[in-house]
Amino acid sequence: MTAPFFTDRLDDARARVEACLEALLGPDPRAGETARPPTLMAAIRHGVLNGGKRFRPFLVIESTRLFDGPEEAALRVGAALECIHCYSLIHDDLPAMDDDDLRRGRPTVHKAYDEASAILAGDSLLTLAFDIIADDETALSPEARLRLVAALSRAAGIGGMAGGQALDLAAEKSPPDEDGIITLQAMKTGALIRFGAEAGAVIAGAGEDERRRLHHYGAVIGLAFQLADDLLDLTADAETMGKATGKDAGRGKGTLVALHGPEWAERRLGELVAEAESLLSPFGAKAETLVEAAHFVARRKN
Amino acid sequence: MTAPFFTDRLDDARARVEACLEALLGPDPRAGETARPPTLMAAIRHGVLNGGKRFRPFLVIESTRLFDGPEEAALRVGAALECIHCYSLIHDDLPAMDDDDLRRGRPTVHKAYDEASAILAGDSLLTLAFDIIADDETALSPEARLRLVAALSRAAGIGGMAGGQALDLAAEKSPPDEDGIITLQAMKTGALIRFGAEAGAVIAGAGEDERRRLHHYGAVIGLAFQLADDLLDLTADAETMGKATGKDAGRGKGTLVALHGPEWAERRLGELVAEAESLLSPFGAKAETLVEAAHFVARRKN
Repeated sequence: MTAPFFTDRLDDARARVEACLEALLGPDPRAGETARPPTLMAAIRHGVLNGGKRFRPFLVIESTRLFDGPEEAALRVGAALECIHCYSLIHDDLPAMDDDDLRRGRPTVHKAYDEASAILAGDSLLTLAFDIIADDETALSPEARLRLVAALSRAAGIGGMAGGQALDLAAEKSPPDEDGIITLQAMKTGALIRFGAEAGAVIAGAGEDERRRLHHYGAVIGLAFQLADDLLDLTADAETMGKATGKDAGRGKGTLVALHGPEWAERRLGELVAEAESLLSPFGAKAETLVEAAHFVARRKN
Repeated sequence: MTAPFFTDRLDDARARVEACLEALLGPDPRAGETARPPTLMAAIRHGVLNGGKRFRPFLVIESTRLFDGPEEAALRVGAALECIHCYSLIHDDLPAMDDDDLRRGRPTVHKAYDEASAILAGDSLLTLAFDIIADDETALSPEARLRLVAALSRAAGIGGMAGGQALDLAAEKSPPDEDGIITLQAMKTGALIRFGAEAGAVIAGAGEDERRRLHHYGAVIGLAFQLADDLLDLTADAETMGKATGKDAGRGKGTLVALHGPEWAERRLGELVAEAESLLSPFGAKAETLVEAAHFVARRKN
């Protein structure tokens, strides 16, 4: 059972991030902008304001709170991270990629608009993420903003999320071994989660040891996130005889759950949550929300 | 006839930018990178190392030289700008966009590889551009790097190149009026050229007046660049009876040349070159390469 204070924090972060995204994607162009093409903006808003959990921005906000860092900056960096996450979903859903018509029960961007708009909406969101962080409105030192740009571009790029998606497509033709699966997942889903967890240390100007500790925490809950996902997929698969869910296994992509079985996965999830708790123990009671986040990730049912 | 010193400078810049791109897209991942998926890297290299003129990086290098700014940093910022330009070509060539099979006589990325690889190659290059600028290897102050990230993300994003491409797609269905054409072109092709021209002032730490002057110069040669393009398209069209070239007119997209005729366009090109010269006159002989660049752009035949 999820602690009520955790649900409150998650809901609060989601509401504030959505308000921030709403403002950033609003109808009024910012000073100096020539134009915001209406159809493009509508496609972007469709892909972003979609009822997501905003878990990645939540990590940015909570890791910043750990050091009493500036909330407003955390919100903007979280919104930038969510723009990257949403761009990746829009492009992943394209016919040439995963070819999905629905996301969260609504038409995907290329279905609601068209493929060209979906490609450009993704490109625009990816670009906007760096614009948001670099902008003076993100009231952090130039050094901190630059470090965030560097870390986010690495997390999203060839050696991070985009590279992981490329490995995932390759995995359909040639299934990876266990090390290959671990690398793929650490890149495809892990990289943005690690960024979200460590961002607070950069935003708040915490020390290098603390940044590394949060990065490690991010790696641990990233693993748990993926494991819970794969477990959910397998369970749902067994129950529904492989319709819609069970897609990863059906496509011949190996998962660690498929390799080692659900009992192993449940045990491993327990170990990961314990590791996350141990990593956060130096922060004491201030880290209770991030500790709870590890439980939440491991237990999640959707 | 193009001045020999100008051709030398352009060739020299191209060779150095290609060496820089080759190193940035090399087989060895940088320290801290987990993996560079080989197929993705091959698709990226196909889309970048393609015999381009590297005119945008040339502008960065020459505008930096105007203030005796650091050459190595200019090269890296130029390479980042070229990554953005190449990503845009890869995505624009996709079947859902302009649907081109050939570029510079070679198969486009989605033809040589596949659509998913082309989408990811573009995404990766866009992301890499910000990584390159933010990296400590780009030996500039954090303030300067951050300003470059901010300016480049705006030039490439919703209010710049990506937005211009969205307007261009919309123009196929509903042809814009003269103001609409000017806005579209200033965003789609003008924004990156303006960035290239003003980047040197930021790289070299020149004053705000000088940055604005170069920005204005970039706007003027951007207009000339597009006008020469449209003129070339119309002339080639008349000669070849509308095959392959003449595509823009054939698709119902208006151009200023189509509106006002080739004589007007030739006269306007002359005015723009004179305006570029006048903007650069305070820099004296140091600006002779950028003056020549304006002539080059206006006279270009491919």
